[in-house]
Amino acid sequence: MDGPLLVIDRDDASPLGAQLVEGLRRGILDGRLQAGDPVPSTRSLATELGVARSSVVAAYEQLAGEGYLEVRQGAPTRVAPLAAHASAMAPGRSVESVAPESAPAPSAAAGGDGELDLRPGRPSTARLDERAWRSAWRHAARVAVPGDTAPPFGERRLRSEIADHLRHARGVACSPDDVVVTAGTSDAVALLASALRAMAGGTPVVAVEHPGYPSARRVLERRGALLTVPVPVDADGIDVAALRAIRPTPDAVMVTPSHQYPLGGRLPVATRLALLEWAEASGAFVIEDDYDSEFRHVGTPLPALASLDRAGRAVLVGSFSKVLTPWLRLGYVVLPANAGLRDAIAAVREDETCPVPGIAQEAMASLLATGAVRRHIAAARRDYAHRRELLLAELSGMDGAPLSGLDGGLHAVVGLPSRALAARVVARLAAEGVLVSPLSDYSAIAGEGPSGLVLGYASPPDARLAGALRVVRAAVEHELSRRPHRWV
Amino acid sequence: MDGPLLVIDRDDASPLGAQLVEGLRRGILDGRLQAGDPVPSTRSLATELGVARSSVVAAYEQLAGEGYLEVRQGAPTRVAPLAAHASAMAPGRSVESVAPESAPAPSAAAGGDGELDLRPGRPSTARLDERAWRSAWRHAARVAVPGDTAPPFGERRLRSEIADHLRHARGVACSPDDVVVTAGTSDAVALLASALRAMAGGTPVVAVEHPGYPSARRVLERRGALLTVPVPVDADGIDVAALRAIRPTPDAVMVTPSHQYPLGGRLPVATRLALLEWAEASGAFVIEDDYDSEFRHVGTPLPALASLDRAGRAVLVGSFSKVLTPWLRLGYVVLPANAGLRDAIAAVREDETCPVPGIAQEAMASLLATGAVRRHIAAARRDYAHRRELLLAELSGMDGAPLSGLDGGLHAVVGLPSRALAARVVARLAAEGVLVSPLSDYSAIAGEGPSGLVLGYASPPDARLAGALRVVRAAVEHELSRRPHRWV
Repeated sequence: MDGPLLVIDRDDASPLGAQLVEGLRRGILDGRLQAGDPVPSTRSLATELGVARSSVVAAYEQLAGEGYLEVRQGAPTRVAPLAAHASAMAPGRSVESVAPESAPAPSAAAGGDGELDLRPGRPSTARLDERAWRSAWRHAARVAVPGDTAPPFGERRLRSEIADHLRHARGVACSPDDVVVTAGTSDAVALLASALRAMAGGTPVVAVEHPGYPSARRVLERRGALLTVPVPVDADGIDVAALRAIRPTPDAVMVTPSHQYPLGGRLPVATRLALLEWAEASGAFVIEDDYDSEFRHVGTPLPALASLDRAGRAVLVGSFSKVLTPWLRLGYVVLPANAGLRDAIAAVREDETCPVPGIAQEAMASLLATGAVRRHIAAARRDYAHRRELLLAELSGMDGAPLSGLDGGLHAVVGLPSRALAARVVARLAAEGVLVSPLSDYSAIAGEGPSGLVLGYASPPDARLAGALRVVRAAVEHELSRRPHRWV
Repeated sequence: MDGPLLVIDRDDASPLGAQLVEGLRRGILDGRLQAGDPVPSTRSLATELGVARSSVVAAYEQLAGEGYLEVRQGAPTRVAPLAAHASAMAPGRSVESVAPESAPAPSAAAGGDGELDLRPGRPSTARLDERAWRSAWRHAARVAVPGDTAPPFGERRLRSEIADHLRHARGVACSPDDVVVTAGTSDAVALLASALRAMAGGTPVVAVEHPGYPSARRVLERRGALLTVPVPVDADGIDVAALRAIRPTPDAVMVTPSHQYPLGGRLPVATRLALLEWAEASGAFVIEDDYDSEFRHVGTPLPALASLDRAGRAVLVGSFSKVLTPWLRLGYVVLPANAGLRDAIAAVREDETCPVPGIAQEAMASLLATGAVRRHIAAARRDYAHRRELLLAELSGMDGAPLSGLDGGLHAVVGLPSRALAARVVARLAAEGVLVSPLSDYSAIAGEGPSGLVLGYASPPDARLAGALRVVRAAVEHELSRRPHRWV
């Protein structure tokens, strides 16, 4: 414990950067670096160790993303207060011993400052480039303020940047004319519901995944697209045979082919084509809710339905809620070549106007144009991959509680044998200061569907996440162990 | 013409500021000051004339608001390009001689650069304090970006500033807890429609003014509040007796008591009380769309319904669309003390989240907190009062085309004998590059209701407005003169 904190071994097989991260992490975990301690400047540490300064910057960034360091502009970087949870990261620590018989106080469980929210849908903003963010808004605030609404489909500049972004990030060849700016996915779904209603000349029928995104379903129902019909989901995603069998034929189906929400399946290309074939034959629209495909951890992302669509039936719905933050309320719809749908959407927007402030559209266009969004996705993706590994390490191999849904995105599913048991785990965790969602919340048929927990792992820094995951594992194992013995 | 441009006469009855404005305006109109000419700095002109610098600043500001001067930050103030329309402002000029027999080219008619939009709903942003605007956004961009949505009813800070604003501007005593932040009036109406639907447990019935705000009516219909029932409007506003007679009793009525949209009536206090009495007796809500009460030109504004409401039935809907710009997409709902409505609104917002970007809420809170909004309203009010005088001067006294609706707000109504004639005037004006709305667009009963034009006068600078109004008068008089002779 008395040797130097950092020893760089150039003969070691692991890269310099990894050695730096590992050395600093160990120093923090074994207490040689204390919360609040400033770390050396990147310049001086680089000189001392004889490594490139960029390696030190990258190491500090990674540790900040993991929650070990606190970076503040204009102040020295310091060790973050991990306190009670430092030990959570010690390698090889077994979790069995921590299963609480009675619930510990929330603050102790969740990492020392209040509850920890592991419900899905919360990305991390720790990597956000503050300088680029501020500069985008500064620029936007310099645009002359018109005394009129933004154009119905959004500011031209933003529509054009979104089209570029989708070409690069998703391989979707669309033009700015195809893009409609929205205040996030709820707004997109509401807009489509209104348009479908106008086109149907009555109450349209929209098929939805079961289990699936509950708030999209309720938005549809609220907006007069009264009939939502549940379609079962298997390990790959929506069951197209079941969709085909629905009578009357739905006006549209809403799907999450990249990463089924919440179960995590990825729709194979053949099934995607079958889905589009059904849409073409039946005159229905396929609405792809592409909510997190930027974060694919295993395998490459499959093409968006819009890029396979030849008949003008695929509508792409996306947002910057996971990519940046849902605080922005900014998303988009990419319309297919379908004059009826375009006219119906235009009629709604002429009346209700684009709900996104013009200035926010200008700022978002700058964030895309300067590459800040692309860089942020790359940085966040590394953090999320790391947290996903941590989740796999902490929650794998629980008997009776299989882990799934982790090939992409920012959440995982822990299967459980019953809804009642899942509800007990959720309640127990809430009492211990860890919020998770029951899988039953996603059911489109009351009382039916798989049981388990849905956990978002993107937002908390590693150290707090690890502590919380151990609490989750303990709660799951505790409740599983209390089940009546099986006699067979 | 060769004397000094500005002579300040301290014995003159008119105030110094008015003499300054008058002198400069005359100089521009008679061509001694040419488009593009820089005017002296406020400091040097003040010294030269021996007046306070603030008087010169105020005079320049007024002339900029009227469209005679162009103010740009960091550049000298210059004479604006009025060109073809300078003469429009010459006092006492009669309009008869300019009535075009055939439509002149749009550019000539509308002021030298493209069409002029006199459809209502477009405020002027010429007075916007750019420094305060930029500073508000700079501040907002410094707020730490959360990885989560804003709270369902909006950011606390903004709700609190809106409550303060309403206390001062409208005498509405509400708490921040009563305020729900919205993306403008359409979003507010959609939110209320969803809540009413949930409360009614079916299709609610909402009474609307006829004629009235067409897009609010369509938003209601689109959001499943399927049944909108028209209620006639008289010179004062909604006809409460007609409302009382509707069976089944509506779940809500939507009204514009400050300045009936579009006819311009102001609901007397006694009628306001009768309306609230009806609401209390029938368990209905009264939704007050308070879209422009900040700009009252004649008489004092009457109290908002919310401030008269004792039974928890009055809902106040407002926005910063007229006060600042609809480009902002920012508004609010003030909820009455009614647990059922609050719960229903909360349920919708929990699901769909607050559609206003958190950063826009922060910026708006700053604009309110620093007094920038209050100052902007005061400055804009002076401009609008001036433009209203101009409109009265240009459009009063047309036989068969009475002018009305001008006691408050930013638009006027020109009555016309028939829809067909109004349609011809609208088309003729469009061909001449001046856009106005036919009154028939506001009808809630197809083919019924008064005929005429609705003109927004807030947005164009005075010189362009005067030119356009003369084109309007000529078109109206031309079409009126083409009517078949009356034989009686």
